[in-house]
Amino acid sequence: MAQNETIQLDHGAGGLASRRLLERVFAKHLANDVLAQMDDAAVLAAPGGRLVVSTDSFVVDPLFFPGGDIGCLAVHGTVNDVAMRGGRPLYLTAGFVLEEGLALADLERVVASMGRAAAQAGVKVIAGDTKVVGRGQADKLFINTAGIGVLADGLELGASRARAGDAVLVSGTLGDHGVTIMAARQGLGLDLSTRSDTAPLADLVADVLAACPGARLFRDPTRGGLATALKEIAEASGVAMELDEAAIPIAGAVAGACELLGLDPLYLANEGKLICVAPAEQAQAALAAMRGHRLGDRAAIIGRAVAEKPGRVWLNTAVGGRRLLEMLSGEPLPRIC
Amino acid sequence: MAQNETIQLDHGAGGLASRRLLERVFAKHLANDVLAQMDDAAVLAAPGGRLVVSTDSFVVDPLFFPGGDIGCLAVHGTVNDVAMRGGRPLYLTAGFVLEEGLALADLERVVASMGRAAAQAGVKVIAGDTKVVGRGQADKLFINTAGIGVLADGLELGASRARAGDAVLVSGTLGDHGVTIMAARQGLGLDLSTRSDTAPLADLVADVLAACPGARLFRDPTRGGLATALKEIAEASGVAMELDEAAIPIAGAVAGACELLGLDPLYLANEGKLICVAPAEQAQAALAAMRGHRLGDRAAIIGRAVAEKPGRVWLNTAVGGRRLLEMLSGEPLPRIC
Repeated sequence: MAQNETIQLDHGAGGLASRRLLERVFAKHLANDVLAQMDDAAVLAAPGGRLVVSTDSFVVDPLFFPGGDIGCLAVHGTVNDVAMRGGRPLYLTAGFVLEEGLALADLERVVASMGRAAAQAGVKVIAGDTKVVGRGQADKLFINTAGIGVLADGLELGASRARAGDAVLVSGTLGDHGVTIMAARQGLGLDLSTRSDTAPLADLVADVLAACPGARLFRDPTRGGLATALKEIAEASGVAMELDEAAIPIAGAVAGACELLGLDPLYLANEGKLICVAPAEQAQAALAAMRGHRLGDRAAIIGRAVAEKPGRVWLNTAVGGRRLLEMLSGEPLPRIC
Repeated sequence: MAQNETIQLDHGAGGLASRRLLERVFAKHLANDVLAQMDDAAVLAAPGGRLVVSTDSFVVDPLFFPGGDIGCLAVHGTVNDVAMRGGRPLYLTAGFVLEEGLALADLERVVASMGRAAAQAGVKVIAGDTKVVGRGQADKLFINTAGIGVLADGLELGASRARAGDAVLVSGTLGDHGVTIMAARQGLGLDLSTRSDTAPLADLVADVLAACPGARLFRDPTRGGLATALKEIAEASGVAMELDEAAIPIAGAVAGACELLGLDPLYLANEGKLICVAPAEQAQAALAAMRGHRLGDRAAIIGRAVAEKPGRVWLNTAVGGRRLLEMLSGEPLPRIC
């Protein structure tokens, strides 16, 4: 691949150029036995029991940022959605929309990152598609992934399963992804020393479930952040949530950047953290399991579900006040994922 | 929904506006029991045996065209890829990338069309996602769908299964979709009286398989058209293909438009037609099955697979010549699907 090659419209035409792109970039980095069928659709043995299926589109700007890029993010985002329902992610599909003029080297860097992330997450990319649109009709590169996982018998997790008395945990610091993208995009010229937390969470979920089989639900607080995710859970479960601000882990660099940029970390996107709601008596076991995992070393119990005023999310502030958290409203950070 | 409402960035932020859009447009038109779980991912009973999985992104310009729109196309394109491997399509995921400023009424028209197409094709949309990008960062609306189907035991279809002596059939006229999009986009001010053929093909495949259980493969000649699809099959199977131009069905209006626009219908996209390669002795049965189906009334046997010079596709022209067909090269029609 020449250094300065770019995407042309005929790369999306379904002819010879499309096939060459497929072979030189996609097959090279995403190869596996199912994708190698190279047909209209992939055929595979049905995993038994129940399937977990999810989809996400990724439009993050910029494509490359401290801690990751759109390629690994497109893997993590979808395998994490599957994992939040308790599914073990097995397969991904990947659809690309490319802007004419995109540097082929950038595309290959993204696809290579996807390949590494898929291998790390234990999933195969089994079907793909590429479309090309003209200059100015898309911004460089968008990716959609759909994920298929298998769900163990008897496992029932979901946003409506929280009960009054349950503990609320998070697996680590909040806001790292959101603040990093914001800083990268603003071209602030500041080195905020933050990095995206983008990471695959299925192993962490499995560890927590082994230690805390009664876990009610997992949720990865991506767009909308912790506050929006908990508000949705509170409404779906018919409970209120009470959070202790002092217990919520936020990295020093993120807290500083939020102050500088005027952002609330409770509403920032995370791409490698999860919320877990668990029965109070299993909360310490869940916490220990999180802390025993590489991705959960700053896990914390941050609050509890209560019966009064279902649907509300309260924050007991560090200075002794009490604040009601609503869903994210407005768009502080477009194209965060 | 007010008449003049448009998509705003906060519709993609994952907060309150996102949820309202989900409820008012997506849930309204795509409702089913699985989608109603409204969680990070959908859980469903695994269909038995083998799965067939495919994905496609849709960037067609314009969004609405004679015979269809991007919404029904996004259903048909993916269920057809599943059907071409013999799969019965069951589930779809749908990921939307919306441009800020898109009219909500246009979005709803697209999603409603998707809902009707899904119902007609017998599939449920079980998971979805919406992202919004700023003005000028996408062209109105892109859709990605991934499809999951189930494959009957013992059924083995694929591009590498054609054998010398087999018959090559098409289920109807070629080029209708490609010419229609081209004419719609050029704003030629001509009424070419053509319509896209966009349609779901799984029932047609099932009818052909019932009559012709030895069918080797099906392929829907979308981007790249008949010529590119047959070239791929010839290469994958290690046979040559010999086509009779006079036998290839092309609607009069399409032939006229192709002449006017300087297009070759053998390279134009189709969205509701299939190629079938079948053993010669079952070809008449396959043809009769196609003609007995609403979507196959102009089906024809258009040629045969031969052993000599594997990988080549020959066209015996109507005037008695012989022409070699190569894969599509260049991009005559960007954003055709």
